[in-house]
Amino acid sequence: MPQFDTVIRHGTLATASDVFAADLGVIGGRIAAIGIGLGPGAREIDATGKLVLPGGVDGHCHLDQPTSDGSQSADDFETGTRSAACGGTTTVIPFACQFKGQSLRDAVTDYHRRADGKAVIDYAFHLIVSDPTDQLLGHDLPALIHDGYTSFKIYMTYDDMKLNDRQVLELLSVARRDGAMAMIHAENADFIGWLTDKLLAAGHTAPRYHADSRPMLVEREATHRAIAMAELADVPILIVHVSGREAIEQIHWAQGRGMRIYAETCPQYLVLTEHDLHGHGMEGAKCICSPPPRDKANQAAVWDALAGGTFHIVSSDHAPFRYQDPKGKMLHGANTPFNWIPNGVPGIETRLPILFSEGVKKGRISLQRFVELSATNPAKMYGLHPRKGSLAIGADADIVIYDPDRKVTITNSMLHHNVDYTPYEGLEVTGWPETVLSRGEVVVEGGTCVAQPGRGAFLRCDTPDLARPKVTAV
Amino acid sequence: MPQFDTVIRHGTLATASDVFAADLGVIGGRIAAIGIGLGPGAREIDATGKLVLPGGVDGHCHLDQPTSDGSQSADDFETGTRSAACGGTTTVIPFACQFKGQSLRDAVTDYHRRADGKAVIDYAFHLIVSDPTDQLLGHDLPALIHDGYTSFKIYMTYDDMKLNDRQVLELLSVARRDGAMAMIHAENADFIGWLTDKLLAAGHTAPRYHADSRPMLVEREATHRAIAMAELADVPILIVHVSGREAIEQIHWAQGRGMRIYAETCPQYLVLTEHDLHGHGMEGAKCICSPPPRDKANQAAVWDALAGGTFHIVSSDHAPFRYQDPKGKMLHGANTPFNWIPNGVPGIETRLPILFSEGVKKGRISLQRFVELSATNPAKMYGLHPRKGSLAIGADADIVIYDPDRKVTITNSMLHHNVDYTPYEGLEVTGWPETVLSRGEVVVEGGTCVAQPGRGAFLRCDTPDLARPKVTAV
Amino acid sequence: MPQFDTVIRHGTLATASDVFAADLGVIGGRIAAIGIGLGPGAREIDATGKLVLPGGVDGHCHLDQPTSDGSQSADDFETGTRSAACGGTTTVIPFACQFKGQSLRDAVTDYHRRADGKAVIDYAFHLIVSDPTDQLLGHDLPALIHDGYTSFKIYMTYDDMKLNDRQVLELLSVARRDGAMAMIHAENADFIGWLTDKLLAAGHTAPRYHADSRPMLVEREATHRAIAMAELADVPILIVHVSGREAIEQIHWAQGRGMRIYAETCPQYLVLTEHDLHGHGMEGAKCICSPPPRDKANQAAVWDALAGGTFHIVSSDHAPFRYQDPKGKMLHGANTPFNWIPNGVPGIETRLPILFSEGVKKGRISLQRFVELSATNPAKMYGLHPRKGSLAIGADADIVIYDPDRKVTITNSMLHHNVDYTPYEGLEVTGWPETVLSRGEVVVEGGTCVAQPGRGAFLRCDTPDLARPKVTAV
Amino acid sequence: MPQFDTVIRHGTLATASDVFAADLGVIGGRIAAIGIGLGPGAREIDATGKLVLPGGVDGHCHLDQPTSDGSQSADDFETGTRSAACGGTTTVIPFACQFKGQSLRDAVTDYHRRADGKAVIDYAFHLIVSDPTDQLLGHDLPALIHDGYTSFKIYMTYDDMKLNDRQVLELLSVARRDGAMAMIHAENADFIGWLTDKLLAAGHTAPRYHADSRPMLVEREATHRAIAMAELADVPILIVHVSGREAIEQIHWAQGRGMRIYAETCPQYLVLTEHDLHGHGMEGAKCICSPPPRDKANQAAVWDALAGGTFHIVSSDHAPFRYQDPKGKMLHGANTPFNWIPNGVPGIETRLPILFSEGVKKGRISLQRFVELSATNPAKMYGLHPRKGSLAIGADADIVIYDPDRKVTITNSMLHHNVDYTPYEGLEVTGWPETVLSRGEVVVEGGTCVAQPGRGAFLRCDTPDLARPKVTAV
Ligand SMILES: [Zn+2]
Ligand SMILES: [Zn+2]
Ligand SMILES: [Zn+2]
Ligand SMILES: [Zn+2]
Ligand SMILES: [Zn+2]
Ligand SMILES: [Zn+2]
Ligand SMILES: [Zn+2]
Ligand SMILES: [Zn+2]
Repeated sequence: MPQFDTVIRHGTLATASDVFAADLGVIGGRIAAIGIGLGPGAREIDATGKLVLPGGVDGHCHLDQPTSDGSQSADDFETGTRSAACGGTTTVIPFACQFKGQSLRDAVTDYHRRADGKAVIDYAFHLIVSDPTDQLLGHDLPALIHDGYTSFKIYMTYDDMKLNDRQVLELLSVARRDGAMAMIHAENADFIGWLTDKLLAAGHTAPRYHADSRPMLVEREATHRAIAMAELADVPILIVHVSGREAIEQIHWAQGRGMRIYAETCPQYLVLTEHDLHGHGMEGAKCICSPPPRDKANQAAVWDALAGGTFHIVSSDHAPFRYQDPKGKMLHGANTPFNWIPNGVPGIETRLPILFSEGVKKGRISLQRFVELSATNPAKMYGLHPRKGSLAIGADADIVIYDPDRKVTITNSMLHHNVDYTPYEGLEVTGWPETVLSRGEVVVEGGTCVAQPGRGAFLRCDTPDLARPKVTAV
Repeated sequence: MPQFDTVIRHGTLATASDVFAADLGVIGGRIAAIGIGLGPGAREIDATGKLVLPGGVDGHCHLDQPTSDGSQSADDFETGTRSAACGGTTTVIPFACQFKGQSLRDAVTDYHRRADGKAVIDYAFHLIVSDPTDQLLGHDLPALIHDGYTSFKIYMTYDDMKLNDRQVLELLSVARRDGAMAMIHAENADFIGWLTDKLLAAGHTAPRYHADSRPMLVEREATHRAIAMAELADVPILIVHVSGREAIEQIHWAQGRGMRIYAETCPQYLVLTEHDLHGHGMEGAKCICSPPPRDKANQAAVWDALAGGTFHIVSSDHAPFRYQDPKGKMLHGANTPFNWIPNGVPGIETRLPILFSEGVKKGRISLQRFVELSATNPAKMYGLHPRKGSLAIGADADIVIYDPDRKVTITNSMLHHNVDYTPYEGLEVTGWPETVLSRGEVVVEGGTCVAQPGRGAFLRCDTPDLARPKVTAV
Repeated sequence: MPQFDTVIRHGTLATASDVFAADLGVIGGRIAAIGIGLGPGAREIDATGKLVLPGGVDGHCHLDQPTSDGSQSADDFETGTRSAACGGTTTVIPFACQFKGQSLRDAVTDYHRRADGKAVIDYAFHLIVSDPTDQLLGHDLPALIHDGYTSFKIYMTYDDMKLNDRQVLELLSVARRDGAMAMIHAENADFIGWLTDKLLAAGHTAPRYHADSRPMLVEREATHRAIAMAELADVPILIVHVSGREAIEQIHWAQGRGMRIYAETCPQYLVLTEHDLHGHGMEGAKCICSPPPRDKANQAAVWDALAGGTFHIVSSDHAPFRYQDPKGKMLHGANTPFNWIPNGVPGIETRLPILFSEGVKKGRISLQRFVELSATNPAKMYGLHPRKGSLAIGADADIVIYDPDRKVTITNSMLHHNVDYTPYEGLEVTGWPETVLSRGEVVVEGGTCVAQPGRGAFLRCDTPDLARPKVTAV
Repeated sequence: MPQFDTVIRHGTLATASDVFAADLGVIGGRIAAIGIGLGPGAREIDATGKLVLPGGVDGHCHLDQPTSDGSQSADDFETGTRSAACGGTTTVIPFACQFKGQSLRDAVTDYHRRADGKAVIDYAFHLIVSDPTDQLLGHDLPALIHDGYTSFKIYMTYDDMKLNDRQVLELLSVARRDGAMAMIHAENADFIGWLTDKLLAAGHTAPRYHADSRPMLVEREATHRAIAMAELADVPILIVHVSGREAIEQIHWAQGRGMRIYAETCPQYLVLTEHDLHGHGMEGAKCICSPPPRDKANQAAVWDALAGGTFHIVSSDHAPFRYQDPKGKMLHGANTPFNWIPNGVPGIETRLPILFSEGVKKGRISLQRFVELSATNPAKMYGLHPRKGSLAIGADADIVIYDPDRKVTITNSMLHHNVDYTPYEGLEVTGWPETVLSRGEVVVEGGTCVAQPGRGAFLRCDTPDLARPKVTAV
């Protein structure tokens, strides 16, 4: 009689701490045992020569998120989570975004409707607060935090999202009091507006000018300000999608003063540069995201901060807009000015392969650090640990069996998102996910998603330990 | 028939990454399985309500180390390792110290003789190079690194140990080429000498003046210089026993520039202050170590750097000299001037309890971070991972069953070292090791060491991954 | 026949560069000669044992400035300039402040009306832009700059003054293009509002809470942001009334990156501390100004930055409100909450004596640095050099004959402003102005102002050299 | 009857503070008057359209300094001071260098013998201490300081000069106690030795490898260490010949902490780069000096620090060795390895023209800052102010009448030193000294030195105010 539902045998397991050879046994969708020569499983998977990793946790992606400019998210919860799963990710945390005037609870309800019956892997929601009324601050947000939506994103830019400093402080106070992780998009809206108008007035509308409209100091300033607000409110924050040296320096400075400032970067800042915005015709539009990719020196700075300890998580910031599409990058036609091009790059499927290949294989980070950045820390950051993000007894059996040696040239046709391009077209990587399990169930096999839409479950997040203010009195 | 030699049941296991409830099974001295409801063990240990942690790895302690001033190490490998084990430590890495003129191999041979038949837990050796001849640099040291002595300490101070910058660079070149971790004692010898002579000339001989002879900038300067040498030689280094803000700032600065500079601190910098050197009569001599404990603000800076990521390991720097002893702190009689008082404090047994109580229990660090700092990272730093330092399949079953709630007031009579005092006399801590296993064998039970001297084995260290130079070209 | 209108004989002259014994001869209101044994003057002034200094230039003071809260400036141009003159200042640069909705030219006209016929010494105007319409940016401000109003102040806080970042950038662009010096009041309005509401909600209304409503980081954040805007607009700026370490660090950091960031501090940050807000009853209201005085450590940091080169000018920021007055500090009665208490301290007369006594006499700064900070640099900063601010041939004979040894205990009854208190009551200083000349005419003699109101002339300011952007291309 | 010995009429005078039109009258070799329409002079010099500046003070040059390697200083006090004078410099401060074993007084006597009867302009001596015996520290050096040798240079590198940290501290203690300015050559000798041996072992002997043997961090480390020693000894120091960013950052950091750390740079770091060491054959030898010129980015950093306030003086560090000469750069023949090539570049005559043209004319620094850096501050730094370095009444009439518009292409044939090359060959500059007066006597006229050797006088230096420790207690 099989002792386990599933046994993954002869693999090399990795956690954020350790790498070792062992079998892994699953019972009831959870990791039940790790050991040498485990008893038989109803299903046996041979992982000889493979890595057995916790499934990736993508702590920052946008799925089926309505916009106010007429553009359309190319991925819904079905295509998005399928693409994620094929890339080795077993948990995604997209956003439930409040429109101004909308109640936050209604927004959440709407997003649940969007996700229901579609997701192939588990998901939680970050909230996005765009209209922090007294009702929201005093009741709705605390109630949602209590209900398991324990993180929210604050925008310092984008006209329909941005909050002023006072509003940010009010929200950080809620984060502190009710125990939530505040994620901050740190770019100075006024700076961007001023630069954009100058560029447009000079007739500079091509995609490449997107980078000129948001130079490094736009991000540095907002990062410093965000840190100051975290200091004032005495609460940890996470700075999302950090793109280069000057922002890193602010974060590193704050960390050196003993503050709990966490930071995220994304593959686009690890392998793209502003040069990718300079392509022929509108090609650059494919790589328009905010903050924009920087130059090679900044890219090196991001790698250094990743190999060191300044960064805590690597997310995709998957924001899927089709390229040749009037609801995508060509929103205002074939010459859409850079400031009207929807922001974002797709990358939910390529996140792990790029980080593994450029990071682990090139010797910049250890395999443990890879696991930590892409799975364990995101789970911890957002209150999903120990359920998700590690190979621990009792944790959900979200597992990726990874072929560390497979050579793949990334091309969009092999990806499973609903976007008509990938910014990483032609990038050669070593290593690719082979088999993916979600709660013990094989959802990807041989590169094909075999999961039924709707099998993915909504996850209530716990209060993240990392969101606790620093203990200063003893 | 028992499936395991030993099963530790119903405990809460912790690694540097995760905390979870599970049983742990040992076969042949190694961790064979971790899981829910493991099969029976020949020996069953109930860990209900207890933490099951990897045994501590003390990466910095001095045992039976001869001196040149007539003082005598109070602990040999028997008392020292017994004390360590009783404090939850299952691996120690003391030093094999070359005397000037002595061959390094002879030094190692001598230290093996000192350890043979005495240690109750496993041990490796760091080398101390005090006389870097061409023979040593070109042959002896590389050969010893090859033989498993893959770390060595470099002193920038102490007359009989200190190397000049040229010699340090030569040694760092060996570390780079042959793959060893260089540990650096960073204090400026000339600064200390100058200050000491001024203090003595002014008649300031009491123990408290030890602190004045080695102010923070003595350490800051040497730390900056050590970092510069690491940069020049392009090799990681570890700065040992970092005591306060200015040194931390240098390390943090270097880390922010992408350098692999590791750092260690010790309990004496976490709970003692310079005020402890001000005791009645010669009492202050009990706390004389170098660098000296600093003030409260520096102590807070050390905690911040520990909770953040600037520090990588916490060691004891156990350096045992008896207080009321003409071969100890009273080396030159009842009024021994501070500069003749042997440097060092005992602490091999109290390291884990202090870090656990002041760190985990007071909410400054997580349990995972505790494990990382005290066991996993030291093992990684010195090429002992994955054999030591974690609860991983295949690892040595070096395990401490820790009572997280036991309240203990530290007093010297309860400790097992051969020193007549502890600097932590009267300190109240919460949590204490209950049962300790080394390679699956119970060595401490109910606070008593039950292991035979000599059972501890010498460990050949691997090349530490952390000692690899940063990859810069891609 | 006299060769000079006036000769000041046997004094010790000081410039920002040199100190030397000489006579000084005036012809036609200008300095005509400096030398040994000058020929006779129609008037001869013996300065034996005295310093002969350029008259102070107070680059920041508020005179007869209407408010929107019902408070009233205690000093008009007559009492204000008389007080200034008695304190050794011969040029003041108060503000012409635009109300929202008012044209900038009308504001200037109004202020000229206020000054006409009243001033006893020369004066120029900084503009305050509170409503940067397109008309103002495109026409009015450039025209006024052209007419000699070559500096303007930007507020980042105060409800009726504050500009958003976009507006600041627009104004800095004008400063760059048309050649003006932008002065920035750097405090974050939202932070202050948030803190103030929290304090008030907790019932904390006493004067001392003013300091809690504007802690150091309120100023640090705005300083960083102001620097970022200067960087973006590529133009020098001056940060006014810098109060402590964290703001200084930002400025120092920017200067170290090669930016032209100038900085001002004031006597209140050199001798007062937040403790002065803690007085009995409402006494603290006397010292309410923004930013507030900080603690002793910050005060020391201000002195260090003054003795070093981080600061460029010392101004009074004289903002005169009577204490026992329903149009002054008691605006809302005897228990006026801190946030309704008019901001500002008087100090136009005590600026030089305090800086001289605490700075030069206590050995913190040289006499040349005193002259530079209090006279020469303000004149340069605002386009009044070489007419004002130095003892140079051809310069206006604005001269103070200073008794360096006179001991004075400051008390309000000896001062000439129209305020009923001085925050420096009881402060003992060494050195006091004895005789003051404006354009060669004695305006203060024996501590008495002998000048007719209206003799002071309006000064058109030149484009300040210091406002030029850094040359980067060669 | 003439009122003045000499009147310089109709010029534009400049001090470190001011620029103004005036006449200048000289009596008895001193500046007696500055004013409009001065009375007649026995000699009248028309300076219409010209600048009238204080003669340059070259605070760092080497004249007739014996070496230990067989090389020979190309310039003695006659050719050296003549070249200086022709370049607008009226005071030089070369070194009196102690050989190990020699008494410092004997060294001084020897140098006086070398200077006697030769100098055409005034001179003082810095001491160089290479052998700080107790006799020297306790008696000889204090006595010489008392006699007017109030500055000394400390070498942290060069085998025959370098002192260890202890010796440096002893010397800084003397500087503090007896009131002298300590100048520090900050390069780490051990680092250089290690790098040099590696380069030579690899066969890299060409001049260009000089730069590789002394990279930026060699200087950065020593700068940090020097600052630490100044902090420990609590005394100001001057870091000489600072070459680039990393050293500047250390200095700027120290200044930001309130320390009195002064800094000097030289024209070679303002216009040369390491590329100039890459010339054909041995051409690079012409530009070998220590520290070596850096890259363009470092050059820009030096300019920024010059335009800001980090640097205090610009000196020539004139160290004259002939190029095609077996006692010069070709010391060991036509392929002299870089480490045997005498260090130093000539530049005593080109210092002011390069700084004026590249600095003032290109808009990087003001004319006042030029005067401050090249004349006033060096005089203040070394106790020669107010006698030298400014246009002040009573000061020595050391004056240069400077044609600000003359265009000159620098070529060695036009220079007056005894070196067979200039590193600035072909450099086009605008502005050149026309007439130079020393103590009222014309010493250069129309580009020709008309002074008799021996007319230059030895200057006893006062205790420099700038060498006083910071006042901290009040
Ligand atoms: Zn975002
Ligand atoms: Zn996003
Ligand atoms: Zn040590
Ligand atoms: Zn030690
Ligand atoms: Zn203000
Ligand atoms: Zn003001
Ligand atoms: Zn030198
Ligand atoms: Zn030199």
